[in-house]
Amino acid sequence: MFRDLSQPIETGMPTYPGDPDVTLAPDATHEADGYATSELRTGTHAGTHVDAPKHTLPGGEPIDEGAVGRFAFEARLVDCRPLAPREAVAPEALPDPSGLDPDVDLLVLRTGWESHWGTVRYRDHPYLTAAAAERCRAADVGVALDAFGPDPTPTADARPNEDGGPNEGGGPAASNERDEPDGTPAHDALLGAALPIVENLRALDGLPDRFRLYAFPLRLRGADGSPVRAVAEWEE
Amino acid sequence: MFRDLSQPIETGMPTYPGDPDVTLAPDATHEADGYATSELRTGTHAGTHVDAPKHTLPGGEPIDEGAVGRFAFEARLVDCRPLAPREAVAPEALPDPSGLDPDVDLLVLRTGWESHWGTVRYRDHPYLTAAAAERCRAADVGVALDAFGPDPTPTADARPNEDGGPNEGGGPAASNERDEPDGTPAHDALLGAALPIVENLRALDGLPDRFRLYAFPLRLRGADGSPVRAVAEWEE
Repeated sequence: MFRDLSQPIETGMPTYPGDPDVTLAPDATHEADGYATSELRTGTHAGTHVDAPKHTLPGGEPIDEGAVGRFAFEARLVDCRPLAPREAVAPEALPDPSGLDPDVDLLVLRTGWESHWGTVRYRDHPYLTAAAAERCRAADVGVALDAFGPDPTPTADARPNEDGGPNEGGGPAASNERDEPDGTPAHDALLGAALPIVENLRALDGLPDRFRLYAFPLRLRGADGSPVRAVAEWEE
Repeated sequence: MFRDLSQPIETGMPTYPGDPDVTLAPDATHEADGYATSELRTGTHAGTHVDAPKHTLPGGEPIDEGAVGRFAFEARLVDCRPLAPREAVAPEALPDPSGLDPDVDLLVLRTGWESHWGTVRYRDHPYLTAAAAERCRAADVGVALDAFGPDPTPTADARPNEDGGPNEGGGPAASNERDEPDGTPAHDALLGAALPIVENLRALDGLPDRFRLYAFPLRLRGADGSPVRAVAEWEE
């Protein structure tokens, strides 16, 4: 049994604040060329994707290094719902490392935020506390989730220049009036231990507690991450 | 046991004649933004990729339709070597459909052409005769190979305008002085039966006769194909 856990990639799709716009446009056409091809322009963190340590850690490993088999995960679903907008997920919401099947190398955290994909509310996803990320590190498991990422995403009003070209500050390091962390501590804790992060999953409803998750990144030379087709497989 | 069968994706990589150039460039940087992202510009048929029926058949199914599990293939390796440049592969070089394990849904044809990746000689790969493609269709198996594709690729001298913008003829339909087919008959036969084609594999040396091949396309809305991370898995 397979299930597609990936968001569609298309022109104008939602992206993380400051990331490049995505376009997918015809190149060769049946009429002019006798066959059809297209050109894709995308950020490496658009849609469903995997982060490499290089994403938040200067000098971190790029996405194309290391063994490719580690992206065939033994996944454990963790339903964290209900969660409020921008709620901090504490370590107690995650399995205790001592009780976790040692085969498991990825926790798939269901926050419920996939229902907000394509709306401004999608930015207001829950996030992992530093202690929760530390628990993942202690258990030696990566994290996947149905949201932009394990750290808070800037609010819409935090970036007046949102549509204006390159990033101009206000990204993950933006300060705020809430009790949210600065920087990307959950990313840093996970990526610093070479634990992968898979972001923007969808279709988590009805998944079994345990399954295999394929999230092979493209072999992008030296890159900080890659869009993936995330696919779950389990025995019925 | 896993093995990466994918060509690297990078700026200036080899592409099929007339296809868009590939660029992979930094967008956000640690210095300016506190984290690193990149922008990828690529054709849908760059590097290791999967063709959708829409690629050569007007009105054919795009890459994002149908069940995603069909891209987890039960693969059978077929060593076709030795082959001369632009040699036609006859049906007798492929397994007889009646003797093929019915679990197999993909033939991985080893032509030996991966050693020419990055040189002009890579264009002179062997190709499938219409009868060989018909044999695959009779066996209900897709085709993967270590070359640009199952139909002949234009020679370097067939396209004086090669670097000049959009395709201007001379693509797969180019006529020639050899006994090669016009158009894309092998593509058409396979894609017309909804049999996938996986192109530009590498690292086929030493693979077992049978393995699983993961080649999940990105979920590119309505597209004619997609770059993939092709990964083999087998029990040792």
